[in-house]
Amino acid sequence: MADRKQRFTGPIVGVDLGGTNMSIGVIDEKGKIVGRSRRKTKAAEGREKVIARMVEGIERACEDAKLSMKDIEAAGIGAPSAVDWDKGSVIHAGNLGWKKVPLREIMSKRLNMPVVVDNDVNVAAFGESRLGAGKNRGDLLAMWIGTGIGGGMILNGKLWRGPFHTAGEVGHVVLFPGAGPGHRTLEDHCSRTALVRSMMMLLGHYPDSMLREFLNREKDDEGKPDPSAIGSGVLAECYSKGDPLVRKVVDASAELLGLTIANLITVMSLQTVVLGGGVSEALGKPYLYRVRESFERVVFPKTLQRCEIVPSQLGDDAGMLGAALLARETLSEEK
Amino acid sequence: MADRKQRFTGPIVGVDLGGTNMSIGVIDEKGKIVGRSRRKTKAAEGREKVIARMVEGIERACEDAKLSMKDIEAAGIGAPSAVDWDKGSVIHAGNLGWKKVPLREIMSKRLNMPVVVDNDVNVAAFGESRLGAGKNRGDLLAMWIGTGIGGGMILNGKLWRGPFHTAGEVGHVVLFPGAGPGHRTLEDHCSRTALVRSMMMLLGHYPDSMLREFLNREKDDEGKPDPSAIGSGVLAECYSKGDPLVRKVVDASAELLGLTIANLITVMSLQTVVLGGGVSEALGKPYLYRVRESFERVVFPKTLQRCEIVPSQLGDDAGMLGAALLARETLSEEK
Repeated sequence: MADRKQRFTGPIVGVDLGGTNMSIGVIDEKGKIVGRSRRKTKAAEGREKVIARMVEGIERACEDAKLSMKDIEAAGIGAPSAVDWDKGSVIHAGNLGWKKVPLREIMSKRLNMPVVVDNDVNVAAFGESRLGAGKNRGDLLAMWIGTGIGGGMILNGKLWRGPFHTAGEVGHVVLFPGAGPGHRTLEDHCSRTALVRSMMMLLGHYPDSMLREFLNREKDDEGKPDPSAIGSGVLAECYSKGDPLVRKVVDASAELLGLTIANLITVMSLQTVVLGGGVSEALGKPYLYRVRESFERVVFPKTLQRCEIVPSQLGDDAGMLGAALLARETLSEEK
Repeated sequence: MADRKQRFTGPIVGVDLGGTNMSIGVIDEKGKIVGRSRRKTKAAEGREKVIARMVEGIERACEDAKLSMKDIEAAGIGAPSAVDWDKGSVIHAGNLGWKKVPLREIMSKRLNMPVVVDNDVNVAAFGESRLGAGKNRGDLLAMWIGTGIGGGMILNGKLWRGPFHTAGEVGHVVLFPGAGPGHRTLEDHCSRTALVRSMMMLLGHYPDSMLREFLNREKDDEGKPDPSAIGSGVLAECYSKGDPLVRKVVDASAELLGLTIANLITVMSLQTVVLGGGVSEALGKPYLYRVRESFERVVFPKTLQRCEIVPSQLGDDAGMLGAALLARETLSEEK
C-alpha cells in the first residue's frame, strides 16, 4: 500500500491546450519544469492532427528533459472547454471545434499512461494554488481575462467543481439585467474581444488614437483594418502611453471587473483573488489598481477589503504546471 | 473517548433570535421539536432585558418539553447579524441595536451549558440541509427573502463561512452597477422593504389598487397611511387576486431574484437553491415559478437548469431547528 502511494512522485507531463497554441512541460517531483515544448494548435486541421501534434509535443518535451516516455508517470491536460470531469471528456470547445471528445481515453491509450483532463482555468487556478500566487492559502478565486473570461475556485485546498462539475463560469455572470444579448455579461464587457469591439466602435470619435497606427499596419483580405491586430500587448502599450480611447475603455472594464469580483467575494468570503490571462498580464499594475479600487467600494462587509487581489505568478506556465500538478494529486488520491 | 463522543445526543435548545420575535424550541436526539416557546424580542428595552427574556423563554420551552434545564446539553442561537464565528459574538445587529456583543460567552454563563452562535440565515440553511428541503444533498444555497435578504451556503455538507466568516451576504450583491445608493443591490430591489417602497412610489398611477384599502386601515401618528401595514401576507393576498400594481412590482423582483440566483449558480454550480423568508413563503408557487423562469433563461451552461429551486420545508422553524442542530454538530466535532 505504502508502495503504491509513492507511485505518482516521478516526472509528470502537463499540457495547456489552447485554441492557438499548445504549451507542454515535464515537471519533476518538486514541480520544477525540466523540459518544455510548444506547438501551434492548428485546430482547423482537425482533431486527429491536433492530437498527433500533442503526442509529438509531449515526446519532444521529454527529450528536452532528457527523459524517455517510459519515465513519465502521468499526464494532465487543460482544455479550453467545459469538461466532464468524471469521463475526462471535452464537452464543447468552441476554439477547437470539438464536441464530446473523450480526450482522457484517447490520450491515455496514445501515451500508455494515466491522463487527467480538466478545464483550462481550473488547472491554472490549481497551479497558482500549489506553486503560485495562492501558495499556502486554502481558498482562492482565479479569473483569467483573455480572449474570453474564465474562472476557477479553490475551496479548502481543493478545486471546487460543484455537483454538476461546471463551477467557475465567471465570464457568463450577467452584469446588466436589462441589456440585450452580447451586452449583458462580464465577458461581453471585459474580455479582450469586448475591449477591442468597444474601441472599434468609438474610434471615429478619437481621430488621434494610437490604435489607428496599429490597425493600419495590418489589413484584412479586403484591405480594411483588422481588429485582430489589437492584441493585449498593443492595448498595454497604448494604455501606458495614455491613449485616451484605450484608457477610457480599459478603465471602464476594470471598474466592472472589480464590481464583479466584489459581488463574488461578498457571497463567498474568500481571501485571495488571482488575476491572469493576456489582458491582465499585459496591462499589469495600473489595471489591477483600478480593479481593486472598484472592488473596495462595493464589497460587503468592509472587513472583506482584506481580501487580496494579486496577479498570476506562474503566467503562461500556470495552465501547463497546474495540469501536471492536478494529474499528480488526483491520481495519488485515487490510489 | 467513545463516551465523550456520545455526549451531544440528548436534548438541545435552539433559538431564532429575530428583530421582532424570538422563537425557541427543544429538540430531541432525532431532531424532533418536543417543546416550544415564543416571545417578543422588544429590542428597544435594551440588551439585558432581551437576554433575560431569552433565558426565560428557554426555561419555558423546557417546561413545555417536560424537561428540566439540567437535561439540556447545549444551546444554539441564530442572530440577525454578522457573527464572529470564532468568538461567538454578534458583530452588528441593526435590528437589535447591538454592536460587538459576546453572546456565546454571556449565554453559556447564564445557561451553564455550551452555546453556539451563528448568523440567522446560516442556521436556517443548516436546518434545511439536515432536516428540510436540502436533506441528503451535499450542497445548497439558501436565500431568505424577508424585510431584508440574507443567504447561507452548504458545501460538501458543511456550512461555508469562508476564511473571513462572512459568506452568504447575497442581499448585498450589486445588480445595477450604474445606479445610486439604495437602488443597486438585490436587497434594494427584492426585499419586502424594497417591494413596499416601489409600490408606494407607484401608487398614484394605480387608483384602484387594493393596497389603498390596507393602507387606509392603519394610519401612523400623523394620520397618514402607514406602509408597515403592507406585510408579506397582504402582498400575497393582493398578488393572488391579480392586483396590477402588486403583480407588476413582485414579478419584476422575481425576475431579478432569478437572475441573481443564475449568476451565483453559474459560478458555484450547485444542485439546490432553497428559498425561504416571509416574502417567498407568503407568495408561494407563482413567485417561485417566475424566479425559476428567469433563472433558466440566464444560467450557464444550460446543464445547470437541472439545479432545483425549492421552497423552505421548515418554514418558521428553520432557524430554531437549524441553530439547535448546528450546536449539536459543532460541539460533537469539537470533542
